[in-house]
Amino acid sequence: MMKFFEEHAPFITNYWPFIISSTFICLGLFFVVMFVKNRGRYIRVFDKENDVGSNIEEEVGETNDQVFMSIMKNEDVQIPYALPRLQPVAMIQKAQSFYELMNTRRSCRMFSDEPVPREVIDNIIKAAGTAPSGAHTEPWTYVVISQKDVKMKIREIIEEEEEINYRRRMGEKWVNDLKTFKTDWIKPYLVEAPYLILVFKQTYGLWPNGQKKTHYYNDLSVAISVGIMVSAITNAGLCSVTSTPLNAGVRLRDLLGRPVNEKCVILLPVGYPAKNAKVPNLQRKPLKDIAIYC
Amino acid sequence: MMKFFEEHAPFITNYWPFIISSTFICLGLFFVVMFVKNRGRYIRVFDKENDVGSNIEEEVGETNDQVFMSIMKNEDVQIPYALPRLQPVAMIQKAQSFYELMNTRRSCRMFSDEPVPREVIDNIIKAAGTAPSGAHTEPWTYVVISQKDVKMKIREIIEEEEEINYRRRMGEKWVNDLKTFKTDWIKPYLVEAPYLILVFKQTYGLWPNGQKKTHYYNDLSVAISVGIMVSAITNAGLCSVTSTPLNAGVRLRDLLGRPVNEKCVILLPVGYPAKNAKVPNLQRKPLKDIAIYC
Ligand SMILES: Cc1cc2nc3c(=O)[nH]c(=O)nc-3n(C[C@H](O)[C@H](O)[C@H](O)COP(=O)(O)O)c2cc1C
Ligand SMILES: Cc1cc2nc3c(=O)[nH]c(=O)nc-3n(C[C@H](O)[C@H](O)[C@H](O)COP(=O)(O)O)c2cc1C
Ligand SMILES: N[C@@H](Cc1ccc(O)c(I)c1)C(=O)O
Ligand SMILES: N[C@@H](Cc1ccc(O)c(I)c1)C(=O)O
Repeated sequence: MMKFFEEHAPFITNYWPFIISSTFICLGLFFVVMFVKNRGRYIRVFDKENDVGSNIEEEVGETNDQVFMSIMKNEDVQIPYALPRLQPVAMIQKAQSFYELMNTRRSCRMFSDEPVPREVIDNIIKAAGTAPSGAHTEPWTYVVISQKDVKMKIREIIEEEEEINYRRRMGEKWVNDLKTFKTDWIKPYLVEAPYLILVFKQTYGLWPNGQKKTHYYNDLSVAISVGIMVSAITNAGLCSVTSTPLNAGVRLRDLLGRPVNEKCVILLPVGYPAKNAKVPNLQRKPLKDIAIYC
Repeated sequence: MMKFFEEHAPFITNYWPFIISSTFICLGLFFVVMFVKNRGRYIRVFDKENDVGSNIEEEVGETNDQVFMSIMKNEDVQIPYALPRLQPVAMIQKAQSFYELMNTRRSCRMFSDEPVPREVIDNIIKAAGTAPSGAHTEPWTYVVISQKDVKMKIREIIEEEEEINYRRRMGEKWVNDLKTFKTDWIKPYLVEAPYLILVFKQTYGLWPNGQKKTHYYNDLSVAISVGIMVSAITNAGLCSVTSTPLNAGVRLRDLLGRPVNEKCVILLPVGYPAKNAKVPNLQRKPLKDIAIYC
């Protein structure tokens, strides 16, 4: 047998340690690359921060082979879901305080230039990133601007487009419907506010191989995420205005170097209201005019 | 002069006290009716609860005539806007806790039938009603279902339509993209959850005279409002799923007797997760994959 190999494949008998070790090295490299590419998509069995994930093995109670399979397709595992229990009185109290907090929110168009901690902005975006999304596609990109020169360029683009909007594109009726808000195309807040957050929706995604990935209900998903962001901004004691700079989307996307599958949906300046900030004295509809009970 | 009246209009000289007093009574009644109809749309100068509104006269510093004019068009008055000030450390802390709270949210499709206090649902909807909206049009109607028989009818409609969705309308690719969620057209949660909230967007409004009122960006506005509602549900320690029952909108609208300008956008069951509730082990994108800083 040995002789047969020596005769017909002298290469193998001479170099077998080299062949075997390089095979193992290649296999190892393959697994490392796979792991890095899918990082965060594995069950983190040893992640002590993540209580739900850390007990997966016991919870699901699968054999070792099955656990290996689910490591490969972690998202397909079903994990138990529970929430800390509130007593009715506490729950009513919490729900009412939250309403009262949200009810302090107003669209603010006059900002102080006082700085806001970056960690606060980070957490506001992280909150927005917890939003539900069609088929869990997370079709959003938040671009945060704090550099003065970038803010100035954004202001320039928006004021240019908004002037045309007010003069021609919106028409008399729309401009008239905005009278209450005393808005026009001059937008100093775009430079005054310490941060501008531009929300882009990804109309589709891209798989690693370049194929298009369908983003189901991407407009709904992104707007729900903006709603959570607005709640987070209000919770932090900051203010903003959910503005829609008509016709400026492509120029803003190009300025910020965003790809063509992304569309600017909403721009929010974020910061403290200016000392002399004013808002129109709007009233909100009472519950009975927005809710119907069956 | 008196004689002239006595001769030509004896009615007036005999009954003038009656005429004058009834004129005043009619005028008084007219103002009372106007006031009741527009309640909440006036500046509440004497409303001690509303600190911002209560100082209008001093703040704006207008003459009495101008104040009267603004009472007639209250929304056009600009009032000062300020927010309670948080210190940086407290703000960072608050923003982080809010993120952590929101990050406990998962789309839940298995509910306990345990009741939830009505006041909690009221406050959740009131929170949603504080959302910003294009030109302050508040283009939303929330229909809350708690009656078992109505829930059963809704389940019937949705299961019928969803079966066709899964079998034919969504197509193989979409159904495949949902595999992770283990969903199908059987939806017991539509009866189990103590409440269903159906969110309708008003594609346009109606003025009292029947004319159409444009609801600018109504889809964006309603979805942002749903985002605040999702935050409020999570804050109350409850759970839901922002479901989009494809093709069932018109049948649901007809069942609930909503007008043709309203379109069902999203249906949320609301309640406690079932004891044995499970959710797919999804991971959310980390901050660095959703935020870009300039
Ligand atoms: C616009 C939108 C539509 C959705 N439609 C449905 C639906 O019809 N049925 C359903 O079960 N879940 C639906 N979902 C929930 C998503 O499947 C869910 O948010 C996603 O899987 C992420 O999971 P998570 O919410 O637990 O983070 C929808 C979510 C959004 C934002
Ligand atoms: C979808 C949407 C688009 C909006 N677009 C603008 C805008 O372009 N510019 C602006 O100043 N405000 C904009 N707003 C803010 C509204 O004018 C504001 O929400 C409304 O007047 C109600 O006031 P409040 O937010 O203070 O309750 C927008 C709001 C929404 C929801
Ligand atoms: N509406 C169907 C299918 C469905 C499910 C989840 C999801 O994220 C999406 I987009 C669609 C259903 O409710 O089953
Ligand atoms: N985008 C313009 C006009 C505007 C303003 C407010 C508003 O609610 C809506 I809808 C539009 C601007 O920002 O001035």
